Amino acid sequence: MTYCVGMILDRGLVLMSDTRTNSGVDNISVFRKMFTWNVQGDRIITVMTAGNLASTQAVISQLEERTKAPDERDNILLKSPTMFQVATEIGKLLRTIIAERQNANGDRGKGRFTASIIVAGQIAGMEPRLFMVYPEGNFIEASHDTPFFQIGETKYGRPIIIRGYDRTMSMEDAVKLLMVSFDSTLKANLSVGLPLDLQVIERDVFEPAHEHRVTHDDPYFRSISSSWGDALKSAFHSLPDYSFVGE
Amino acid sequence: MTYCVGMILDRGLVLMSDTRTNSGVDNISVFRKMFTWNVQGDRIITVMTAGNLASTQAVISQLEERTKAPDERDNILLKSPTMFQVATEIGKLLRTIIAERQNANGDRGKGRFTASIIVAGQIAGMEPRLFMVYPEGNFIEASHDTPFFQIGETKYGRPIIIRGYDRTMSMEDAVKLLMVSFDSTLKANLSVGLPLDLQVIERDVFEPAHEHRVTHDDPYFRSISSSWGDALKSAFHSLPDYSFVGE
Repeated sequence: MTYCVGMILDRGLVLMSDTRTNSGVDNISVFRKMFTWNVQGDRIITVMTAGNLASTQAVISQLEERTKAPDERDNILLKSPTMFQVATEIGKLLRTIIAERQNANGDRGKGRFTASIIVAGQIAGMEPRLFMVYPEGNFIEASHDTPFFQIGETKYGRPIIIRGYDRTMSMEDAVKLLMVSFDSTLKANLSVGLPLDLQVIERDVFEPAHEHRVTHDDPYFRSISSSWGDALKSAFHSLPDYSFVGE
Repeated sequence: MTYCVGMILDRGLVLMSDTRTNSGVDNISVFRKMFTWNVQGDRIITVMTAGNLASTQAVISQLEERTKAPDERDNILLKSPTMFQVATEIGKLLRTIIAERQNANGDRGKGRFTASIIVAGQIAGMEPRLFMVYPEGNFIEASHDTPFFQIGETKYGRPIIIRGYDRTMSMEDAVKLLMVSFDSTLKANLSVGLPLDLQVIERDVFEPAHEHRVTHDDPYFRSISSSWGDALKSAFHSLPDYSFVGE
């Protein structure tokens, strides 16, 4: 499995992804699922992937035209006029790659090789944007009503984001929120694993404002993980008590 | 979907289930998923069901021998010598009912009609016990290491139980914990819905110590739901702040 979250705030975008891939519980690897391209002063585009690893790696490789010699490569994302166009191109590529693998495998291919992608970024002169691209190639965009997208193992970490998110929050608070959401998920599901990749994109700054890989011995993540348990317990005990009397 | 939790504590058992069943989002009904049989001074047995409603209703009806005239009925659960035997009988019945429906529908029946059941209770002279019965008819028993079982839409409400559970907690605190877990699930997933059924079984008391149906206007559930949002926010803000500096 996988867990990735992309969040849009007034100040920009905050993105976090895990790195675990597994094919069964006895075949576990670490693969980066967050990929960034940027052109100073012009654009920054980050994608996060969930689903079949061969499919998502094929998307990234084809975006970068790795079939060509290095000096002949031409990344279509760096020339797209808008983020909408970026999401469209990624959707086309994703749909084509999945369909090829499925068709090549006949009946056995049905419903396999699927993947989803979160696309985040900003192009100069336009707003920061956040999209979720489906395996069918279509996509949706984040809005004031739905300002974050999750892909992969989304359920354990969702309640805290629903309660804690605020569009006006600081980037630091957004990072803290994602750390808590990932901690809850890691505690409940083996298919999501450390290290985590974190990226902060500030509005109108066309390079990552902050990037960090959270490993097992990361002091901040460890302090969140241990103090969240205590904080939750205090929160829980602060709630009104239930009483059996009078029922 | 469904959400049911059974929890074993030093003082007894606490059980909660929702009542929503849906076949698509446009066909929603309320059905009780918690069923209790008890004999004063001798035994109390409660089951909670998730999965195909026709299958789980068939299990309950056959347990009560509703095919027979009322005065000829004989509930096998009331004569089983141990809770282990109760779980075995329910497992047999569940497996048989699912297999019948599947076989009757040939290829179209594969993987359908499945259901899971939580079985909780105590028989005089023995400990309170908690089991989870799978569609295949086999089952597992709760232990000190895994002292609660969830069935249905289990993920949203799991992190808070993992953090909040304590075997020595009071029954009232256990009810509070389940209220929070259900609130998180209800907020995230339409397929779990009010009203909720709550039952508390105290050790060596062979009738429900407390039963309650939580409806939309339940003042306690409403106060938990609203104060949990605030309590979570305070808990969140009590955590150490993240800093971009020095990375």
